Amino acid sequence: MIVPIRLENSQVVTYNIHIDTLPSLTFDTTVAIVTNPTIATLHLKKLLTKINAPKVEVITIPDGEAYKTLQTVETILNQLFEYRLDRKSLLIAFGGGVIGDMTGFTASIYQRGIDFIQIPTTLLSQVDASVGGKTGVNNAYGKNLIGAFYQPKAVYIDTEFLKTLPKREFAAGVAEIIKMAVMFDSGFFEFLQTANFDDPIVLKEMIRKSVELKAWVVNQDEKESGIRAVLNYGHTFGHVIEKETQYNTYLHGEAVAIGMVVANTLAVELGYLTPFEAKSITSLLERAMLPVDYKIKNIDDFYEDFYLDKKVAKGSIKFILPHTIGAYHIAKGIDEEIVKKSLRMFGSEQK
Amino acid sequence: MIVPIRLENSQVVTYNIHIDTLPSLTFDTTVAIVTNPTIATLHLKKLLTKINAPKVEVITIPDGEAYKTLQTVETILNQLFEYRLDRKSLLIAFGGGVIGDMTGFTASIYQRGIDFIQIPTTLLSQVDASVGGKTGVNNAYGKNLIGAFYQPKAVYIDTEFLKTLPKREFAAGVAEIIKMAVMFDSGFFEFLQTANFDDPIVLKEMIRKSVELKAWVVNQDEKESGIRAVLNYGHTFGHVIEKETQYNTYLHGEAVAIGMVVANTLAVELGYLTPFEAKSITSLLERAMLPVDYKIKNIDDFYEDFYLDKKVAKGSIKFILPHTIGAYHIAKGIDEEIVKKSLRMFGSEQK
Repeated sequence: MIVPIRLENSQVVTYNIHIDTLPSLTFDTTVAIVTNPTIATLHLKKLLTKINAPKVEVITIPDGEAYKTLQTVETILNQLFEYRLDRKSLLIAFGGGVIGDMTGFTASIYQRGIDFIQIPTTLLSQVDASVGGKTGVNNAYGKNLIGAFYQPKAVYIDTEFLKTLPKREFAAGVAEIIKMAVMFDSGFFEFLQTANFDDPIVLKEMIRKSVELKAWVVNQDEKESGIRAVLNYGHTFGHVIEKETQYNTYLHGEAVAIGMVVANTLAVELGYLTPFEAKSITSLLERAMLPVDYKIKNIDDFYEDFYLDKKVAKGSIKFILPHTIGAYHIAKGIDEEIVKKSLRMFGSEQK
Repeated sequence: MIVPIRLENSQVVTYNIHIDTLPSLTFDTTVAIVTNPTIATLHLKKLLTKINAPKVEVITIPDGEAYKTLQTVETILNQLFEYRLDRKSLLIAFGGGVIGDMTGFTASIYQRGIDFIQIPTTLLSQVDASVGGKTGVNNAYGKNLIGAFYQPKAVYIDTEFLKTLPKREFAAGVAEIIKMAVMFDSGFFEFLQTANFDDPIVLKEMIRKSVELKAWVVNQDEKESGIRAVLNYGHTFGHVIEKETQYNTYLHGEAVAIGMVVANTLAVELGYLTPFEAKSITSLLERAMLPVDYKIKNIDDFYEDFYLDKKVAKGSIKFILPHTIGAYHIAKGIDEEIVKKSLRMFGSEQK
């Protein structure tokens, strides 16, 4: 006896990313802002003047990737229950990627899902976390290993918040922008080679272009079975670097920048990229004040760590590599020895 | 500057519920069975003979509602990471509702979502948890307050497992079946008034009818904005009873049975149900060996506890009441005093 079940309520998701001065926002429900002490000190006052709602609560959680844990999510959940948020209430993620990822994940599991909006305050989260609905936390086994795909109702990007952003964090955001250019758009790459990153007009354009490219990618593949994996260029290596350095040495975007250089070494080895192209990517990363060097302590350990990275399916490792600048190649089944040779070459190029 | 985002990948979900002797199941990925010691002792051997997969892991978690927590979910997650399950791996929920809810929730957040199937071994989980995709855990603030909507890939219902089910648990499952009949189908209610619950053929028919009714409801309203709330008949009161008794006195279905009788008292008070109809529902519950009495210690406390129940949106309480047998009424904005009067009446009817 078989009872076939067909649920027809799954819906197309639409929302807007507003790239402009933060407008006034009016809600008819309880709003809980999730933020960290740094952003609260710098910008909470401004945000509160923009929000009109019957009740506004503020939840402050410790700053930094180290606190992106299930435990912190539970702390936020408990606060929401204390404030008696209901299923119609709204969360606002006000901060960088850590805040965005955790607030989105919390929203996805609070009473089986409530609405949230993103007001990202770092360049990285503005270009990266605004699109794609990836939410989650880290654990002892690696980064972002627990989470959900959950979309915000809207995203508000105001470059004004970037004025207080430390230079390293700004550069970490540029890394993701460069990643998009290398993978998808050689014209955008050329634009970045001479762009003045401090010019607000240029900056808004860079954000717009990145966000549109990412939306184009995610639109084709919401669940990461195909092209979306390309967004992981630099990330597979970057994650291992972050893990090896206990998440306390490099910002995510910095680790990704190094990861891109490692990936490029493999791409050159496999003939997908010329040494000249690899060099011009490294130069652009350096122009953006990003690190491009890393000392791999033990090649075998480094390689072994891939297996626990969540991008690994059925034991086979996918490498996302540039195939000339502005195009990509997803390399599968690369021989272990070739990868290790590239890792050694990358190491020997280090000053 | 607005970048509109449109994600077109959300899909219609389809799966089958098989109501038959458990067939052989073949998978080409790692499979992790989540179960509890009771079910493992009684039925794991049988299940293992039916599963063909390259690798089969078994995760045993403590039995009972008290362990349906975020902490247990984290324990399961850690096991999955230890066993190196990847995004293509599969979870099997093998047990009752607690196992199903936690396994489904774990599947929904492990690496942002992997597949799971349900093999429910209690009548309650066979009729109730098979359809609807509600997964989650309890916390200090109440039941099922943390979770996700996440659908299984398939459900296998084998009434053979019910032979080892304690009589009280069997009755608790019948409570949910009676609930469906009272809300949606007077013919089904009449069938139940004389049905022999021990006859396997009758039992399969009861399960099929319940599952189909629930699928019909969920199909109309996957996200519980409307008719799905009707499935909470008896639950709003039942949850409070479970909470007041620290989840250690009544089985869920037993609390729901009492909750239905409380709801009926209110329905009679409001004129939606005749005293005779209320009596015949109580009689059917008693025929199924279900409790229908409960001593409310403090009417005000009992009433206050509604507010924290997750069904409360924006402070207004919805009551799901029978409107004759076989139809429902969703009552909103019922005066506090009328509700409290019904609670007192229910109390005074107690032996």
